[in-house]
Amino acid sequence: MMITFIQTGGTIDKDYPHTSKGWAFEFGEPATKRILEKLNPSFKYDVVTTFQKDSPDITDDDRMSLVALNNKGNSNKFIITHGTDTMFETANFLKKHIGNKLIVITGAMRPERFSNSEAPINLGCAIATANLMDKGVYIAMHGIVKECTAMKRNLTTGKYY
Amino acid sequence: MMITFIQTGGTIDKDYPHTSKGWAFEFGEPATKRILEKLNPSFKYDVVTTFQKDSPDITDDDRMSLVALNNKGNSNKFIITHGTDTMFETANFLKKHIGNKLIVITGAMRPERFSNSEAPINLGCAIATANLMDKGVYIAMHGIVKECTAMKRNLTTGKYY
Amino acid sequence: MMITFIQTGGTIDKDYPHTSKGWAFEFGEPATKRILEKLNPSFKYDVVTTFQKDSPDITDDDRMSLVALNNKGNSNKFIITHGTDTMFETANFLKKHIGNKLIVITGAMRPERFSNSEAPINLGCAIATANLMDKGVYIAMHGIVKECTAMKRNLTTGKYY
Amino acid sequence: MMITFIQTGGTIDKDYPHTSKGWAFEFGEPATKRILEKLNPSFKYDVVTTFQKDSPDITDDDRMSLVALNNKGNSNKFIITHGTDTMFETANFLKKHIGNKLIVITGAMRPERFSNSEAPINLGCAIATANLMDKGVYIAMHGIVKECTAMKRNLTTGKYY
Repeated sequence: MMITFIQTGGTIDKDYPHTSKGWAFEFGEPATKRILEKLNPSFKYDVVTTFQKDSPDITDDDRMSLVALNNKGNSNKFIITHGTDTMFETANFLKKHIGNKLIVITGAMRPERFSNSEAPINLGCAIATANLMDKGVYIAMHGIVKECTAMKRNLTTGKYY
Repeated sequence: MMITFIQTGGTIDKDYPHTSKGWAFEFGEPATKRILEKLNPSFKYDVVTTFQKDSPDITDDDRMSLVALNNKGNSNKFIITHGTDTMFETANFLKKHIGNKLIVITGAMRPERFSNSEAPINLGCAIATANLMDKGVYIAMHGIVKECTAMKRNLTTGKYY
Repeated sequence: MMITFIQTGGTIDKDYPHTSKGWAFEFGEPATKRILEKLNPSFKYDVVTTFQKDSPDITDDDRMSLVALNNKGNSNKFIITHGTDTMFETANFLKKHIGNKLIVITGAMRPERFSNSEAPINLGCAIATANLMDKGVYIAMHGIVKECTAMKRNLTTGKYY
Repeated sequence: MMITFIQTGGTIDKDYPHTSKGWAFEFGEPATKRILEKLNPSFKYDVVTTFQKDSPDITDDDRMSLVALNNKGNSNKFIITHGTDTMFETANFLKKHIGNKLIVITGAMRPERFSNSEAPINLGCAIATANLMDKGVYIAMHGIVKECTAMKRNLTTGKYY
C-alpha cells in the first residue's frame, strides 16, 4: 500500500516560531511527517504540500489544484490534512471531480504541536480508512469516519458526527 | 455508534510509579482513557479491564474471559488493547469463538506514557475500523489494518504488515 | 519555603480553544499549574493571576498592580510568568518599587501547551533561583539567570544572555 | 558560561526499545540532549557519558571516575544526571574529593521519555544553580535545591526536601 499525504494548512499545522517584537502563529512543516516518524509505518508514503491556508481562505482554484494532484501519477490513496471549517466544501468538490481514487480528509481541533492535540488519533483514523476502503471521499474527525455526504457537523460545539 | 474498549495489559499501558528503593515498571490506568480524553469523540464508549498482563503470559483461560465479555451485553464493537507478542493467538482464539461482532486488536511498541509513543495513532486506526466494518476480528499495528488471518509480522523488526 | 506564582499572560500561557468559524488563540489557565503538577514539589505554593496580556500591552498601571500584590501578605518569593518582549521594563519597574523580596521573571518562546516548549525548563530555573537567592529581581530565560540589570537580549535572535 | 552535563544512568534516561519477543527497558541517549535542544540555551555545553547504571549499582570506583572527569580539563561547572536512590552517596563522595568546582546532581522520578516526566523542570533547577553558585556540591530534586549535606529525603514518599 502507498499513501500520499497532502498538506493544505489548517489548525493541525499551526506552529509558533516566536522570536522577538511580537509573536507569529504560522504554518510550519506538515504535522504528518512528525506523526509518521512516531508510527514507523509498514506502508509506503510521500508527503506533499499544495498550499498552507486557513480553510475559510481556500478557493475553488485551490481545490482544483488538489484535483490535479490527485489525478496525476499513479497513487490511488490520498490523505488530505485540512482546516476544519471548510472540510465539506473541499470534500464535495473532490467527490465531483475524482471518480476512482480513495481520499480521506482530516485535520485537528488543536495544533499537532500541542501535547494535548488529537491530531495523531485523527491521522490514525484516516490511515485505517486508506487500508479498508477502495474509493470515495471520506472525512475523519472526532472518532467518526463517514463518506463525506453522510458526515454532519454541530456548528455550536464544532464536533463532527 | 458505541465502542467498548478493553484493557488486557501490554506495552501500551506500562507506567512507572517510581518512589524509592528501586524502580517499578507496572501497568497503570488504561491508556485509552487518556487518548479518548484528547479525542473528545462523537461516539459513545466505555472502558473496561479484563486483566493486566504482558502478552506472553496470557492464557487461553484469559482469552475465554475476553470471549465471555464480548458476548455479554449488547455492545457489538470492541477495541482490545493488547501486548504485541501474542496478538495473533488472541485474534485467532476470538475469531473461533465469536461470530457476529466487530473486534479490533491494537497496542503499541512504546508505552502511551512516552511522548514518542505511537499509541494514539494505533488507537485511531482501531476506531476507524470500528466505524467502517461490521464484524470480524482485525489487527491494527504499524499503520496496517487487516483481518487477523491476513496480517503478518516480521519477527526481526517486530513490524506488522 | 513558600513561592507565589503570578500569571500575567505572554507566550507561555497561549492556548487554542478552537471550535468552529475561525480559530482563537487565547490565554488559558496558568501553565505553572500543569508544570507544578508534574513536579510534585516539596515547597508550598499558590498560583494567582493579575492579568492576561501580551507583554507589549502591559502598562505601568499593570505593573503597579504587581507591586501591590508582591507587597501584600507575607510571601517573600515570587515567580512571575511574563511575555518575552517587555521583561526588562517590568523587572526594572519592580526593582524600583520593591526592596526586600525575591522576584524571578520568566516565560517561554513557545507556549507550554506545545510538546517542544521550553517552559518547564525555564520554570525550573526560576524555582532554583527562589531556593538560592534571598532578594532582588532576576530574569531566567534561555538557561541564563541573572539579576535583571545584568541580563541582556539579542533582538535579532530573541535570545537572552 | 560553560556547563558539562554528565550521564550516569538512572530513571531519567530509561528508554523502551521494544521490538518482539519480550520487552526491554534500557538506558538510551542522555535525556539532557533532548531537553537542551528544546531550551536552545545561551550558554555553551557538552554532554558526556561516564556510565549507565541504576544508582544502587554505582560503586565507589564509578564515583572515582566521576572525580577524574570533573578534575580533568578546565570546565568548572558540572551537572550530573543520576538515579534517585544513591544521590547522597555520590554527592558526599564528590564533596570529599573535589574542592573548587560547582557540581549539581539531579535526575527524575519518571523517565524523560514520559510526557508527564518532571525531568525538564529538574534540569532547569540544576542549570540555574550552575548560573548562581561558584563551587560546592548541590542536589536539585522536587523543586528543592540545597548543598548536598543540607538536603534530606523522605524514604516513604521518595521526596527530597
